[in-house]
Amino acid sequence: MDQSALKKVAAERAVDFVEDGMTLGLGTGSTVFFLVEAIARRVREEHLHITGVSTSSRTETQAKELGIPMIGIDDTDHIDLTIDGADEIDRHFQGIKGGGAAHTLEKMVATTSAQNIWIVDSSKLVDTLGAFPLPTEVIPFGHTQVERRLAAEGLNPVWRRNDAGELVTTHNGNYVLDLHVGKIAHPHLLAQFLDAQTGILEHGLFLDIVNKVVVGTESGAEVLNAGR
Amino acid sequence: MDQSALKKVAAERAVDFVEDGMTLGLGTGSTVFFLVEAIARRVREEHLHITGVSTSSRTETQAKELGIPMIGIDDTDHIDLTIDGADEIDRHFQGIKGGGAAHTLEKMVATTSAQNIWIVDSSKLVDTLGAFPLPTEVIPFGHTQVERRLAAEGLNPVWRRNDAGELVTTHNGNYVLDLHVGKIAHPHLLAQFLDAQTGILEHGLFLDIVNKVVVGTESGAEVLNAGR
Repeated sequence: MDQSALKKVAAERAVDFVEDGMTLGLGTGSTVFFLVEAIARRVREEHLHITGVSTSSRTETQAKELGIPMIGIDDTDHIDLTIDGADEIDRHFQGIKGGGAAHTLEKMVATTSAQNIWIVDSSKLVDTLGAFPLPTEVIPFGHTQVERRLAAEGLNPVWRRNDAGELVTTHNGNYVLDLHVGKIAHPHLLAQFLDAQTGILEHGLFLDIVNKVVVGTESGAEVLNAGR
Repeated sequence: MDQSALKKVAAERAVDFVEDGMTLGLGTGSTVFFLVEAIARRVREEHLHITGVSTSSRTETQAKELGIPMIGIDDTDHIDLTIDGADEIDRHFQGIKGGGAAHTLEKMVATTSAQNIWIVDSSKLVDTLGAFPLPTEVIPFGHTQVERRLAAEGLNPVWRRNDAGELVTTHNGNYVLDLHVGKIAHPHLLAQFLDAQTGILEHGLFLDIVNKVVVGTESGAEVLNAGR
């Protein structure tokens, strides 16, 4: 199976964890596309009452078209479960997200959510984080100073650009600075360092957040419990 | 003397620390207004070569009109000295800034600067920080979740509003959530907690940053050395 088919396998297994009455966080990206389809099918067939909260206008449009009522993150006092993709997950269930430049919004939904499930294909499982460039979201004012500081720390920062060579801007109007670290030996220490940097809105380290990972494999979906 | 006169006394003493050839960070607010006037006088009288970097379009306009060349924070690889106001300074020379909703930009300039001087009247000197509400800058997406989390921590968050009752927005298009803490017993721990919160761009705790404080008093300006 190709990556897309494996993601679909995982998405269709993850939807088993959705329960009637839940407020559901829905992420961004190709895996979530399959997930929303699977949720809509359960909503239709089992008459579930589900409310969705999304980080992405594309996911929101898709969900609404399929009959899933959507509300804003600021219109709810809780999220029961968030299901989203991830770009890298290590053996301690720490993750990197942000390939889609939406990690700040995704982290807001994730940290609001009582439970988090990530759906991935097995290529996302790694021993140590860092082969996937770690995204940071940086405000325009002083962005070159942020780059300078991260470079001085040996974090190999590279501005994310679109095909036209222009700086990618996020939903919040900020830039994305990808850190090509290679191996992140101490994710919590790196997170603390980045948290403390003026001008960085949010980084893509998602630590101590995920509860279950659903992995799409050739022989079906595998559910890994993070033990938290 | 009134507060304004005391600020002027401090600003006119602080300008003694400006040296020929410096790239100078200039903050925001009424104290900085007096400072820019004093710098311009030295530039005129002593033919100093000064370049300014500002966080505020008002300061920038004033400086340019008075003949001080201004550049953007992203057009320099260093700032020699930043002189700015402060809203509260404790006996360990830790501070709160952000009464003007510009603390993120001010912190960017301050942390880029090799040296920092704050100019204040003596009403800003306190034993323990926290009587002045601590500003945090919060992105719109999920801002009610941030408020909920900070309220749960007992930090008494209150959205800053203008006279028309609308939410104040920053240069970055974000909201300002003021924390009415009363007494901040452990500024570094609170800073670390706020740094780690998703959705908070920056808070107004300026820790281990200032080198000298120039205080305007009835009997002249007093210079306090922070010992860093």
